[in-house]
Amino acid sequence: MTRYAAPLKDMLFVMKELADLDTIATLPGFEDAGLDTAQAVLEESAKLCGEVLAPLNVEGDRNPSAWKDGTVTATPGFADAFRQFGEGGWQGVQHPLEYDGQGLPKLVATPCIEMLNASNLSFALCPLLTDGAIEALLTAGTDAQKQIYVPKLVSGEWTGTMNLTEPQAGSDLALVRTRAEPQGDGSFKVFGTKIFITWGEHDMAKNIAHLVLARTPNAPEGVKGISLFLVPKFLVNDDGSLGARNDVHCVSIEHKLGIKASPTAVLQFGDHGGAIGHLVGEENRGLEYMFIMMNAARFAVGMQGVGVSDRAYQKAVEYAKDRVQSRPVDGSAKQSVAIIQHPDVRRMLSTMRSLTEASRALAYVAAAHSDIAHRHPDAATRAEHQAIYEFLVPVVKGWSTELSIDVTSLGVQVHGGMGFIEETGAAQYYRDARILPIYEGTTAIQANDLIGRKTVRDGGAVAKALLADIAQTIEALGPHDALACRSMKRYLEQGRDSLAAVVDFMVANVKRDPNAVFAGSVPYLKLAGIVLGGWQMARALLVAMEKREEDPSFYGAKIATAQFFAEHVLTQASALEASIVTAKGGEGMLGLTEDQF
Amino acid sequence: MTRYAAPLKDMLFVMKELADLDTIATLPGFEDAGLDTAQAVLEESAKLCGEVLAPLNVEGDRNPSAWKDGTVTATPGFADAFRQFGEGGWQGVQHPLEYDGQGLPKLVATPCIEMLNASNLSFALCPLLTDGAIEALLTAGTDAQKQIYVPKLVSGEWTGTMNLTEPQAGSDLALVRTRAEPQGDGSFKVFGTKIFITWGEHDMAKNIAHLVLARTPNAPEGVKGISLFLVPKFLVNDDGSLGARNDVHCVSIEHKLGIKASPTAVLQFGDHGGAIGHLVGEENRGLEYMFIMMNAARFAVGMQGVGVSDRAYQKAVEYAKDRVQSRPVDGSAKQSVAIIQHPDVRRMLSTMRSLTEASRALAYVAAAHSDIAHRHPDAATRAEHQAIYEFLVPVVKGWSTELSIDVTSLGVQVHGGMGFIEETGAAQYYRDARILPIYEGTTAIQANDLIGRKTVRDGGAVAKALLADIAQTIEALGPHDALACRSMKRYLEQGRDSLAAVVDFMVANVKRDPNAVFAGSVPYLKLAGIVLGGWQMARALLVAMEKREEDPSFYGAKIATAQFFAEHVLTQASALEASIVTAKGGEGMLGLTEDQF
Repeated sequence: MTRYAAPLKDMLFVMKELADLDTIATLPGFEDAGLDTAQAVLEESAKLCGEVLAPLNVEGDRNPSAWKDGTVTATPGFADAFRQFGEGGWQGVQHPLEYDGQGLPKLVATPCIEMLNASNLSFALCPLLTDGAIEALLTAGTDAQKQIYVPKLVSGEWTGTMNLTEPQAGSDLALVRTRAEPQGDGSFKVFGTKIFITWGEHDMAKNIAHLVLARTPNAPEGVKGISLFLVPKFLVNDDGSLGARNDVHCVSIEHKLGIKASPTAVLQFGDHGGAIGHLVGEENRGLEYMFIMMNAARFAVGMQGVGVSDRAYQKAVEYAKDRVQSRPVDGSAKQSVAIIQHPDVRRMLSTMRSLTEASRALAYVAAAHSDIAHRHPDAATRAEHQAIYEFLVPVVKGWSTELSIDVTSLGVQVHGGMGFIEETGAAQYYRDARILPIYEGTTAIQANDLIGRKTVRDGGAVAKALLADIAQTIEALGPHDALACRSMKRYLEQGRDSLAAVVDFMVANVKRDPNAVFAGSVPYLKLAGIVLGGWQMARALLVAMEKREEDPSFYGAKIATAQFFAEHVLTQASALEASIVTAKGGEGMLGLTEDQF
Repeated sequence: MTRYAAPLKDMLFVMKELADLDTIATLPGFEDAGLDTAQAVLEESAKLCGEVLAPLNVEGDRNPSAWKDGTVTATPGFADAFRQFGEGGWQGVQHPLEYDGQGLPKLVATPCIEMLNASNLSFALCPLLTDGAIEALLTAGTDAQKQIYVPKLVSGEWTGTMNLTEPQAGSDLALVRTRAEPQGDGSFKVFGTKIFITWGEHDMAKNIAHLVLARTPNAPEGVKGISLFLVPKFLVNDDGSLGARNDVHCVSIEHKLGIKASPTAVLQFGDHGGAIGHLVGEENRGLEYMFIMMNAARFAVGMQGVGVSDRAYQKAVEYAKDRVQSRPVDGSAKQSVAIIQHPDVRRMLSTMRSLTEASRALAYVAAAHSDIAHRHPDAATRAEHQAIYEFLVPVVKGWSTELSIDVTSLGVQVHGGMGFIEETGAAQYYRDARILPIYEGTTAIQANDLIGRKTVRDGGAVAKALLADIAQTIEALGPHDALACRSMKRYLEQGRDSLAAVVDFMVANVKRDPNAVFAGSVPYLKLAGIVLGGWQMARALLVAMEKREEDPSFYGAKIATAQFFAEHVLTQASALEASIVTAKGGEGMLGLTEDQF
């Protein structure tokens, strides 16, 4: 009941046909990263994830990480799996060759990350945070920090964490109180409490590199006075060997709804004289560096959404093919049939599948933009793709994770009463997924980012460029008479129009009526997800129409999935538009006093 | 953190203004059930629920019912609470005076049931199932069965259960295999295994009356060969005293995602010679009687959805007023503010609130129809209201429970990271709610009922009568120029048109293309819920417009909530229409083979 088979064919289809891997493989440094390499990498990744990590997923839920006297013991089997993960080079897929990484495109790393999360969300969080730490050190660390820390993190000998949240400072980092006092020798002593630190303490690696937001004495108030510090669990000598235990201690871990195998630590810094830390980058620029980590992490959390959705889908399909119950409504059989034959079960599975495929496609396409933004020889091209990538990150994060709740909930529903029994396993995905729209920035935070930094700052330029691209796809659907294409054309066009109207509304009203604009923030993010995801489904549909004779089963399913997405998901666009553009009225909920709630 | 305050003012508003309690109190036998009585009953109920049951809710989650050697011990405190519940007469609110009930209208019982469920979903299941057993015995039981069992069930001395499901027979009762062998003395010996039996074994009452579906020898195959049996845990002597332990035993209870305090039993009948049972009603009519229990139970499960939604809303509001984080987006304060000031938090709370209010209003209105159907002196009027009530039951059950998942999920989201920590309590509602769209018939089963028995059988007559009533409300909104009224008029009209189009589609195509019709079943149920719920919000809006000077805070909130529902929920109607009417195409997911999933 714990099987997971990575959907390699679907993944490679998206990489090749939608994210244009061939072009990515022409970028400097990625010349060896064509389809054959990608396929080989994905196949190996699928093996590790399917054979080693997926079976540990249930075990992690039943036998979570455990805290005792300041130390945390991971679920049995996790440490060994993490060793295999490190030895296989999987932490380094997208990191530079010079630090022992594999130097592969983000487009190739992304399906690997999806598999990792589909197989074991709790496990995957440790590499996810470590990726963030690597990214921050590569961006802002000193040469010595890079040379000592990054190879150890890439090899899996050490792991990394992100320490932002404090009890009074969640989404609002202006309230961070942890302080760092200079010691005169270039080091600092760090004092404070950090909460919600994922894999903040564990026994899977020899050391943990905590990246910690703190304030130096006399730092400006608010977010402009936050600096980033590297605070290792064990002090590190100049040769990279481990020294004394540092004064950072895990005082407890949380009792959570899901992702129970991943310890969520409360870390106490400096209770015994001060935790020794080193500044990363320049003083007071910590938030900027942390955003680098967070943007990498936000994209990865989006992939968690895609991964857990696919896992829930696979499980539901397996059950629906196996469970026999009731005769078909069309009278085509006198006996009870497998429930996958019942129209509503198909509707549920199709919803799960089409949302998963659309969110996967959008994320992989975003990854390709990131690759071009990093490697293209032309600066203007890099900037253009970077802007698109940055526009897409909050959508990938917010939309993929919000829909993972719906998808995993449908996964339970397909199982009927058995879905509510923990032993079945479907409920774990429903519990695990619930954190995804919260951590690394709630959906509202993503949506605010989408509006503020990504839409109105450039007057809607990037959004409108994407809308123009969508229009081209709509045009390409025109000549096709198949019902799937007609439905897609009709509803993608409506969706595009709705998105265009909302972008205009956001740009026009953000200053005049910010409350009305931000009351529509999450509906806007969802609308963007639906339309941009639907666009990818339309592109997939066009490819499938062209190639359907080559592989009728595979492409036929792609056509049906695209049609379903058009008719059941893209159709929601106009309601979202109305809820944003109409709901700006002053009589509404925004005007109520607190007492009226 | 476990507070629950029944929303008495809201409840009484709905009872008086929307469900027309004054008229119900003119029905024979309900003359004493006017507003004053209702208010007194609701206030007493609110006390018990708020003070006794609500604090036990968390305890039940942390310390679930426990099985040992065939006996089940309820969560500490539950047995005493159940004693108070019985002694207070709460089991009997809607049951006849002649069996020691209070003989009050269903409209008065319904808010009590909502409170019971809001305060403690697990606890409330025991009375819920007992209600079903009472209903079945009153309908089909012998005089002796009624006179011995019903008063004991009404007083809370004994409890009742419904035994339908077997491992191979969930939604599909044709597959029931439990058998009942006549003993020649009028009694039967029952053999078989029943699963998912809520409160199937416990220590809160002296006896348990199991109502069990089983087949007699030579019974016809399928659902036409199922009979209903009364199988008490302890045999009952003619004078009502208890005899020997019967041969029905709880061999295990389930480990569930939620409602952990309510034991979900596997019951083994007849492993030690046969469980003695007595036929209820006529042989082979068991399914018919069970439907009486189930219809009562389905309505009550709908109230579970309303109850848990309101509880989650109350908790989220409390947190949102307390939690200070980030400055307002409109720059109206330099300091961080309570998060209820942030537009997206308001959007979430308003979504929770408006869905809860709409589903509550629809359910109470349905209860009033049931009262008229039972008590009105005119047979034609009774029949008319019975038909409306029966149309509404699957909508109340399906829609209220589906939206309780969304509402409890938003409740977690409002709490941010704290929502994912079990100690906070928000996650329990999310877990508990997940069973509601599954048990007593999944949403698909409700939707099939709504199409088959409630919509197409009468050619859409009841549906069209309701649509005509909605048109009158739309007309009444016409003269009002307030933005809330204009939004409501616009979107209720669109919703009404969508619902009308879908009803026509269902009636026209159910024979020609049953797969296409039933693929739209759940969207149809949701559409019906949105439009019928929106209609109640429109009616509430009209009352609030008229009375707003009397109580500006209360009615102002009603106006804002109705506007929000119109703009954020009713707007979804056209997408649902499209997903039903357009999606009938043959290229879609219905045509795929199993292998293509």
